[in-house]
Amino acid sequence: MNEQGVLVIVSGFSGAGKGTLVKELMNKYPDQYALSISVTTRRPREGELHGNDYFFVSQEEFQEMISKDELIEYAQYVDNYYGTPKKYVYEKMKEGKDVILEIEIQGALKVKEKYQDAILLFVTPPNAIELKNRLVGRGTEDMNTVVKRFKRGCEEAEGIENYDYLVVNDKLEDCVSKVHSIIQNEHSKAFRNKEYIKKIIKELNNILEGEI
Amino acid sequence: MNEQGVLVIVSGFSGAGKGTLVKELMNKYPDQYALSISVTTRRPREGELHGNDYFFVSQEEFQEMISKDELIEYAQYVDNYYGTPKKYVYEKMKEGKDVILEIEIQGALKVKEKYQDAILLFVTPPNAIELKNRLVGRGTEDMNTVVKRFKRGCEEAEGIENYDYLVVNDKLEDCVSKVHSIIQNEHSKAFRNKEYIKKIIKELNNILEGEI
Repeated sequence: MNEQGVLVIVSGFSGAGKGTLVKELMNKYPDQYALSISVTTRRPREGELHGNDYFFVSQEEFQEMISKDELIEYAQYVDNYYGTPKKYVYEKMKEGKDVILEIEIQGALKVKEKYQDAILLFVTPPNAIELKNRLVGRGTEDMNTVVKRFKRGCEEAEGIENYDYLVVNDKLEDCVSKVHSIIQNEHSKAFRNKEYIKKIIKELNNILEGEI
Repeated sequence: MNEQGVLVIVSGFSGAGKGTLVKELMNKYPDQYALSISVTTRRPREGELHGNDYFFVSQEEFQEMISKDELIEYAQYVDNYYGTPKKYVYEKMKEGKDVILEIEIQGALKVKEKYQDAILLFVTPPNAIELKNRLVGRGTEDMNTVVKRFKRGCEEAEGIENYDYLVVNDKLEDCVSKVHSIIQNEHSKAFRNKEYIKKIIKELNNILEGEI
């Protein structure tokens, strides 16, 4: 069966717990997954390490990466650029690791257009009330920020139907198992096993030749 | 999440063990799956029961089912017709059961054209040598029949790439788990959960209205 890794894009409502989900997935199956590291022009915050949290580059370096087509996708927020370098993702996939990309819906859909083999997962809480409770429960933002997040959530929701999978994050552990099983089953997709199919047809034909 | 059953079409090389696989799946999860019952114009063999092994009908009744568009697919072998009645399949899917259809590749691809929500699974042994050993090992057919089966296998293999999933039946138990997990994950496909998506967007909007 196919030994190439799968590109997995995880998005979800703010408050849906996708960060924790991805972290748990990495902790539980460190040999199976690799988390894509973004490249950014923003300065490192205290404790952030180059090649661990982000690849930190200058505006010029980032522009060069764009012009050399070295990014899977990129976006600008305020004055800073954020992008996904191809090199790291492809290397890990070649090693047989499934690469997780945690990006927003617009970026995700752009990636899917270019890489149709990628799978898009959308993480949602069991219902909107639960989402509200989680956001308010954090207690770190005022109501205004929470409402802004919600608005964003509503806009984002318009794109979910273009995703491959919708995953409900009710209990974290169940959700991690579900996502792991979805990604692992992707390896059984027929289009990812064209070489295997060719091989078995060839073998069948060879045996036939020998018998007639 | 979606409560409608999924239509699952299982095909595979003769000798791949798909019959045993389907039987095991039904035994292990009797509440989750329903096996589609075919309708045929051939006479019942000893011990075969109407509504259990097949629905046995006359040529006229079968022709009427065709003209009334009551069959998902049908085919003729020698002088007999075989088909899949829509009614039984849809009833079971409405009850939330995933319906298994064990049919040949040509019929399977025809069904997929009409019902794109159906998933196609192709069962293969780990390699062609293993397939040969299983067929020869049965000891019930002469070499000529075995070779015919092989030829058929080679022809069939040409269509596998149009299937959704390729499942290797190495150890039966593992294969049953794999197939079960593939089918159950299908329920998480975003396109099967449009109602759920609509509901959560509506809920989000309602909460937003209340907060502003």
